[in-house]
Amino acid sequence: MSDHQEGLLPSELIGLKRDGHELSEAQLRVLVEGMLGGDVSEAQIAALLMAGVLNGFTVAEAKALTAILWDSGETLDLSSLSGPTIDKHSTGGVGDGTTLLVAPLVAAAGGQMVKLSGRGLGHTGGTLDKLESIPGINVSLEPQRMLDIAERVGCVVAAQTDRLVPADRTLYALRDLTGTVESTALIASSVMSKKLAAGASTIVLDVKAGDGAFMPDAAAAEELARLCVQIAQDAGRRCAALVTDMEQPLGRRIGNATEVAEAISLLRAPPSGRLAEVALELATLALTEARPQAGGHDPSGSVRSELVRHWERGDAMERLERMIAAQGGAAEVCTDPAAILPSAPVEREVVATAGGTVGAMPARQIGEIVARLGAGRKRKGDVIDPAVGVDLDVAVGDRVEAGQRLALVHARSADDAQRAVNGMQEAITLGGASPRDVICSRVLLG
Amino acid sequence: MSDHQEGLLPSELIGLKRDGHELSEAQLRVLVEGMLGGDVSEAQIAALLMAGVLNGFTVAEAKALTAILWDSGETLDLSSLSGPTIDKHSTGGVGDGTTLLVAPLVAAAGGQMVKLSGRGLGHTGGTLDKLESIPGINVSLEPQRMLDIAERVGCVVAAQTDRLVPADRTLYALRDLTGTVESTALIASSVMSKKLAAGASTIVLDVKAGDGAFMPDAAAAEELARLCVQIAQDAGRRCAALVTDMEQPLGRRIGNATEVAEAISLLRAPPSGRLAEVALELATLALTEARPQAGGHDPSGSVRSELVRHWERGDAMERLERMIAAQGGAAEVCTDPAAILPSAPVEREVVATAGGTVGAMPARQIGEIVARLGAGRKRKGDVIDPAVGVDLDVAVGDRVEAGQRLALVHARSADDAQRAVNGMQEAITLGGASPRDVICSRVLLG
Repeated sequence: MSDHQEGLLPSELIGLKRDGHELSEAQLRVLVEGMLGGDVSEAQIAALLMAGVLNGFTVAEAKALTAILWDSGETLDLSSLSGPTIDKHSTGGVGDGTTLLVAPLVAAAGGQMVKLSGRGLGHTGGTLDKLESIPGINVSLEPQRMLDIAERVGCVVAAQTDRLVPADRTLYALRDLTGTVESTALIASSVMSKKLAAGASTIVLDVKAGDGAFMPDAAAAEELARLCVQIAQDAGRRCAALVTDMEQPLGRRIGNATEVAEAISLLRAPPSGRLAEVALELATLALTEARPQAGGHDPSGSVRSELVRHWERGDAMERLERMIAAQGGAAEVCTDPAAILPSAPVEREVVATAGGTVGAMPARQIGEIVARLGAGRKRKGDVIDPAVGVDLDVAVGDRVEAGQRLALVHARSADDAQRAVNGMQEAITLGGASPRDVICSRVLLG
Repeated sequence: MSDHQEGLLPSELIGLKRDGHELSEAQLRVLVEGMLGGDVSEAQIAALLMAGVLNGFTVAEAKALTAILWDSGETLDLSSLSGPTIDKHSTGGVGDGTTLLVAPLVAAAGGQMVKLSGRGLGHTGGTLDKLESIPGINVSLEPQRMLDIAERVGCVVAAQTDRLVPADRTLYALRDLTGTVESTALIASSVMSKKLAAGASTIVLDVKAGDGAFMPDAAAAEELARLCVQIAQDAGRRCAALVTDMEQPLGRRIGNATEVAEAISLLRAPPSGRLAEVALELATLALTEARPQAGGHDPSGSVRSELVRHWERGDAMERLERMIAAQGGAAEVCTDPAAILPSAPVEREVVATAGGTVGAMPARQIGEIVARLGAGRKRKGDVIDPAVGVDLDVAVGDRVEAGQRLALVHARSADDAQRAVNGMQEAITLGGASPRDVICSRVLLG
């Protein structure tokens, strides 16, 4: 880049992106940091973002944007922790209680996970909301407290503070208003700036593909996964990703308390089902990456076998119990969830009106039904009800008989319940389709 | 457009444009009027504009944007005038004193021109700046005063008030900052909203093409001209356009007082040269369009002949003199310009260092030299010097001898003059190129 280009006006830099040129990290800093400092207007950034959405941002631009966002605030320093530090991110889905399984599983295997999670929005759930259905639990922890719990228990799940990557919030709010959310590079830089700032040396990603995911298309999801892995590796972290299916809800329960109950129930038995499979695979990837002597691969399946042993011996269950206790929550939830978790006053069954094979259980539609029951938010800041939700008895590909129960709705009122039952009747369709494998692909680079 | 689409959020409307869809006038109104009312942010409009610049706006969208801008403020009502009302617009150039010729020429032939003009910016001049080099002249006229002068004299040239098309100023300022100036549809809607609001029933356009023009490329200029004519005709106005050459300055003088002197000098002799040719053609187009019995064409050349007669008899000269007097200016400028117009303290000659044929006199470069002498503005609001400028002795295609004077620089200081002389020496190059015809094409639709 010439000195001349260094001196370009913001409008001229935007013009370069408009005309299909690549911007350097220094040029992107002029714009994004200029916006944060007030010298560049949000309108200028909106124009830049739209030019990038339409012309594409390069891998180098995505890396540069990640670095600029990452630099905008505080970072977590995990260097005092004794074990390999591991982080995990999901792009969000329905019935996706993966963190509640992966965190204690990684901890049981000797890793340390400081997981900064989010809240649900729209049809997707959020780990913090789920955890907060446990009485007493505190997810607003200061960094030192997170480190203490991670060192002692092996895992901790808490809210991201406002001081971490503040530029990402500003930029995301702007993207949301200006039709510039859908960009692989912008999504990757948003996700990875937060993961890099959160400090773990190994990062595993769960990029969802399908109806209920941000990326409906598996090829687009894999492209996002590859870019995220490239960004992390470029920043000196170990990183791998799964692309997993979000055509149907991942777990059998959708809501908040009910997803906690499902995680506990899964951890009390040998791993089985799609949710357990994704959790096991993510933990396997993470530990394989974190142990470089294995060369990043687990061909013999020894890492996975070790994790299955931890799961079956109840080691992961124990870690989850200790984590909840360490965060001030009612740890008895792990032994008697029904006694501890809130329950909704009304229950209604969804019953099959005909026999056949379940052809579709569209994740987005089901997520929206559950959100409308009160489990989700239309807008940031909305109050949610931890007790409501839907438990599924079937998955895509299952044979059902007429009259068989397909799902159970937990609602605040008979009206809410009836609306959800009707919605579920409409959402679950019979047909010949076989389900997609829950693991669509693995992204292991370098 | 369905009711559903009517209810879309601004970000969703932006998303439609991003994805290549056409927005309806109602949808564009939600956005642009929303911005004016404060419900839609400038960032959202910037994203929309960039999406339109990259995906293109359709003709229908350009018409809709024109209508929305046009509706944003007051309009001039010319219905009280007795003759055919005619307006003229140039997209801006160097040495382009066309208005000073066309306005009195149209008036001499019985038309009435209320011309709202602008000021110079960057390398291009502005008619108001040129007129203001005449002592006493007032270009800030209330609408009634404009109508009085137009009725009595046939022409008046004044500043556009802030109350006319205010949305265009807001939008243009935003485009200037966000790299979204270069869009045929946005340029056309900006130009035509102002022309439609200015109320004339016939509009002629002079779209410049070449080095010194906003549109360097003649094909792009013709596309802009066609779109402008379509918009005007769709709004029930008569309209035609010329695309004219701006590879070299149009007139032989560039500055402010010096361009007034050139116009007076041209009107005192039979029409000759490129500037006179463009003025005659524009006036011919205007009067041909304004007299519908001719079917919009002047095949026998009778309109042009009539205008040449008016020119040669001094009728146009007389109209200019009366207009200047009616606007409070020193009308003696028309008989003794040297005595009335300001002159610069320093004059320096630009002399040919070798013989040959003039191959290029790049309009933009020469415009920038003259602006740097003090005749132009870097920014809106800069003070200009009416006396400085450059007079050209040659045009592209002229044979010159070594030692022959090529131009005369009028400057405030010896340093300024020397810099301009050096710049002109570099700008004027010898070579075999023959000049482009001054009239590149005519756009007569419908």
